[in-house]
Amino acid sequence: MAEYKAPLRDMQFILNDVFNAPALWASMPGTEEASDHLAAAILEEGAKICENVLAPINRQGDEEGCQWQEGIVTTPSGFSTAYNTFAESGWAGLGGEPNYGGQGMPKMLTVMFEEMLYAANSSFALYPALTTGACLAINAHASDTLKALFLPKMYEGTWSGSMCLTEAHSGTDLGIIRTRAVPQDDGSYAVTGTKIFITGGDHDLTENIIHLVLAKLPDAPAGPRGISLFLVPKVKVDAEGNLGDSNQVSCGSIEHKMGIKGSSTCVMNFDGSQGYLVGDLNKGLAAMFTMMNYERLTIGLQGIGLADVSYQNALAYAKDRLQSRAPTGATHPDQIADPILVHPDVRRMLLTQKAYTEGCRAFAAFVGMKLDIAKHHSDDVVKSSASNMVALLTPIAKAYFTDRGFENCVLGQQVYGGHGYIREWGMEQFVRDARIAQIYEGTNGIQALDLIGRKVSANQGVWVKDFGAEIADYIIQMPQDAALAPFVTALNAANDLLQDTTDFVTTHSGEDKNFIGAASVDYLNLFGLVAMTFMWTRMAAAALPQADDPFCSGKLKTAHFFIQKLLPEAYAYQAKVKAGASTLMALSDDEF
Amino acid sequence: MAEYKAPLRDMQFILNDVFNAPALWASMPGTEEASDHLAAAILEEGAKICENVLAPINRQGDEEGCQWQEGIVTTPSGFSTAYNTFAESGWAGLGGEPNYGGQGMPKMLTVMFEEMLYAANSSFALYPALTTGACLAINAHASDTLKALFLPKMYEGTWSGSMCLTEAHSGTDLGIIRTRAVPQDDGSYAVTGTKIFITGGDHDLTENIIHLVLAKLPDAPAGPRGISLFLVPKVKVDAEGNLGDSNQVSCGSIEHKMGIKGSSTCVMNFDGSQGYLVGDLNKGLAAMFTMMNYERLTIGLQGIGLADVSYQNALAYAKDRLQSRAPTGATHPDQIADPILVHPDVRRMLLTQKAYTEGCRAFAAFVGMKLDIAKHHSDDVVKSSASNMVALLTPIAKAYFTDRGFENCVLGQQVYGGHGYIREWGMEQFVRDARIAQIYEGTNGIQALDLIGRKVSANQGVWVKDFGAEIADYIIQMPQDAALAPFVTALNAANDLLQDTTDFVTTHSGEDKNFIGAASVDYLNLFGLVAMTFMWTRMAAAALPQADDPFCSGKLKTAHFFIQKLLPEAYAYQAKVKAGASTLMALSDDEF
Repeated sequence: MAEYKAPLRDMQFILNDVFNAPALWASMPGTEEASDHLAAAILEEGAKICENVLAPINRQGDEEGCQWQEGIVTTPSGFSTAYNTFAESGWAGLGGEPNYGGQGMPKMLTVMFEEMLYAANSSFALYPALTTGACLAINAHASDTLKALFLPKMYEGTWSGSMCLTEAHSGTDLGIIRTRAVPQDDGSYAVTGTKIFITGGDHDLTENIIHLVLAKLPDAPAGPRGISLFLVPKVKVDAEGNLGDSNQVSCGSIEHKMGIKGSSTCVMNFDGSQGYLVGDLNKGLAAMFTMMNYERLTIGLQGIGLADVSYQNALAYAKDRLQSRAPTGATHPDQIADPILVHPDVRRMLLTQKAYTEGCRAFAAFVGMKLDIAKHHSDDVVKSSASNMVALLTPIAKAYFTDRGFENCVLGQQVYGGHGYIREWGMEQFVRDARIAQIYEGTNGIQALDLIGRKVSANQGVWVKDFGAEIADYIIQMPQDAALAPFVTALNAANDLLQDTTDFVTTHSGEDKNFIGAASVDYLNLFGLVAMTFMWTRMAAAALPQADDPFCSGKLKTAHFFIQKLLPEAYAYQAKVKAGASTLMALSDDEF
Repeated sequence: MAEYKAPLRDMQFILNDVFNAPALWASMPGTEEASDHLAAAILEEGAKICENVLAPINRQGDEEGCQWQEGIVTTPSGFSTAYNTFAESGWAGLGGEPNYGGQGMPKMLTVMFEEMLYAANSSFALYPALTTGACLAINAHASDTLKALFLPKMYEGTWSGSMCLTEAHSGTDLGIIRTRAVPQDDGSYAVTGTKIFITGGDHDLTENIIHLVLAKLPDAPAGPRGISLFLVPKVKVDAEGNLGDSNQVSCGSIEHKMGIKGSSTCVMNFDGSQGYLVGDLNKGLAAMFTMMNYERLTIGLQGIGLADVSYQNALAYAKDRLQSRAPTGATHPDQIADPILVHPDVRRMLLTQKAYTEGCRAFAAFVGMKLDIAKHHSDDVVKSSASNMVALLTPIAKAYFTDRGFENCVLGQQVYGGHGYIREWGMEQFVRDARIAQIYEGTNGIQALDLIGRKVSANQGVWVKDFGAEIADYIIQMPQDAALAPFVTALNAANDLLQDTTDFVTTHSGEDKNFIGAASVDYLNLFGLVAMTFMWTRMAAAALPQADDPFCSGKLKTAHFFIQKLLPEAYAYQAKVKAGASTLMALSDDEF
């Protein structure tokens, strides 16, 4: 069975050596309490619960899956006990608002803990991931009364959260939802409708589940501008926070899925359920986006976590499995064959996993840093600039991390040969569990459209220029060393490629309305490679002074591998972007 | 649930319009009986059994899987009945040797029928696929007595076959197998050992199973030169072909797998089982390669079949599912939203599926044509040249078709959004069933090594030059039309890229023993894209005269899409090949 060890060394390296996070935390009101020692202690304790409590129930959770019987959803063996340990240790409120009982830890730190959760047990990780996102939206948009009533219980993990958007006929296209909310005399709303694909919509882990539900008032405008957001608890809660009657919320069935089988995916029926407005009427989509943006980044972390656990096990297997001899002659002549790690193509697979996983992990921390700055920095200009960067980079984090995550899980499975296809080994579960991350929380195609449309074309690429300026600034102030020259060259070229391609996009997106959709995925992939180049340059620079340590010399060598063996794909993506929309749109329906 | 319609129109187009197969068949002794009418009738009948008998039991077969109880293996509901229909209709011997009851149909035709089988039900398709491969090896290498005793029953489907190579410690590295064969006084051998991952090693479809088993004599030389091949029936057969006692062959267990759950994957125990030598002593690996080469091509067809059925369903879904509006304005203003086929990125996914699936199908026919020429042509020079081409192209067919097959199934699943992840829809099963094809019958990494090592470097790229010359010859004699000019330009450039990269490979493979392994997968992918360019140029040329037919105008437009949107990746593969082995080999074990 696959095992998991949290990559604590790499996380410390990224926080301390690459980004000097403790200095940033010390400089901002609200994060001063976070120090390198506290961060290390949190990651170490987080690692323990992930390695010792959650990873061991991952494989069996996949075989058992969730069960639905007469409206009651049961999670796999061990999930409930593990959840109690998780909640009692205070993990549910790690990044939560301190005014309501959260621990207020920086996002740079929580992205790392979340990555561990997904690596250890992606199905389990989704229950708190939905709770955390719901808390963010409630904290940002709900009344003080609702916040005081719901947030403390959610931060302590006693109650969990869910996100109710999708309906059978309405997924990407939320403007056409049919769930209705009718105003009641007491100021609440009666919510009626059916939502599908609701992750953690029902389960046996918590005594209450707080649903955030998109619905329309009877007289609401058509389309997305008529959507409002409601807080609908599974069990009614009185003014003192005591549980009351059932709130007419029921789970009609659960889905039978390819993976994440320990995560319940529910059809949720609301039948005149009592709901409370969150945010302004008809501005529900904007309020829900607070939650959705959190979920998009956290699902990106699912990609990284699964890629990492797959990599760890593939590497161990490659060191252990004996098969054939090294091309340059036997390295282990005393054994029947050499470990397969000697074979160049096996190393290609492992290094691809390593380069993308560690590059994405660093980029997740970079996005986390921007989120922390956007929330806590004392200078409003810096704050606003960081906020723009978060908006630009979130769709990349979601789509790029999960696409690479899935591909890396496929590579890790491939290293195992035939055993990779056998369930007991666990490598194929990572592939199945990773696959959903490319689909839910907005498909990766939708992320690419969000990037190239709202985040690039809509502002004529000005945020991409800002990102490019940050790269240029970094190059100017980075350590001067001949050993880093290849990375500087590659990073400058990659940045030029991104800026040139972005110019092409902003120029052509007006001419042909199909251009944006035709270029979107290739543009996102190109952007992702440039982001990886930025991260690997920074990691190489941070590793260089400690290059007598194998961890750091490995970093430098992986950076070289990335530049030479993976980055060349960026030019193909540019060619595809520039090829435009015409060949895509030329076919009539019957020519397919 | 997913549905399947055999792509008869495309198959006819490839046979008749692209390759003019009937003229070739008429020209060679042994294939004269095959005509366009006969071919059409066979494909139509084959389509019926695949669409109506095998596809309907595919989804349930995945849920049930095979069962093992006290040594007895049971296939899913309906498999046994379907197999009887299959055998009674004569499909088991379609390409078999006429002297022993086979129907001797050309390979160009059988590749198409096999593709249909995998598309309809990959698990089911594997049972006859192993039988057909075993028959080929027996026909090529066994004594006349063995041929007469076993082939007729196998061609009629009464007995099936299996291929017993892998042992727990010995997969890719067959030189270290431990199964022993001890000569007996009667000329037979007592075979003892345990084989794993044996597809169709046991099941309830046939009254006997004929195992081809690699084993070593007690005094055999070490390594691959000490391996012999034995025919070991599950049930003993007397000289008249009557079934006798059990032959001490037992199934110890079956594997629990990611996919192809209706195909039994068995641990097979041979305990002094009576076996008969096939081919010469210690030349077993060469004899087994007759079977393995067949299996490699047929597994390539699994990739095509699954990609095609995924494409068909994704296309139907994209025409049916309403979500959001077309970028250029509503195409269906009377409906709540437009069909998602209007979105450029959905079209990108579908066209990628279409371009690779149809390109690979044409290339499979091309390889089939070379196999037919290598077997039947009256001119020994032509025969030998075709045989070389088969050797060169088989690893590409196996690896390229299955890599694209898996990726295309992932794309088809993505078109479905969240529904793609739900088992009932069937799209995720195609992904799981396709995944194995990249692993078994020699992983795709091994195929790439076979290509770049034995088939390219070993002969200084002379077969690649022959392939390039065939492309050049085709360009000279192809129809002259301005509409084809973009394809000629692209094909010439692609051929140059292949030849240039091959020169680089043959030059550098001597300098650095790790170079071949480091370049292998990227080289194979580059070669595959060139092969696709060749096929799409031929298909465009064949479609042009009939361009008023949507089928043919769709072909031309897909050819343009391929050239502009997929072919650019070839340059990235060249850059990766030229980056060599150094960054792969630089890391010590503890630097990973």
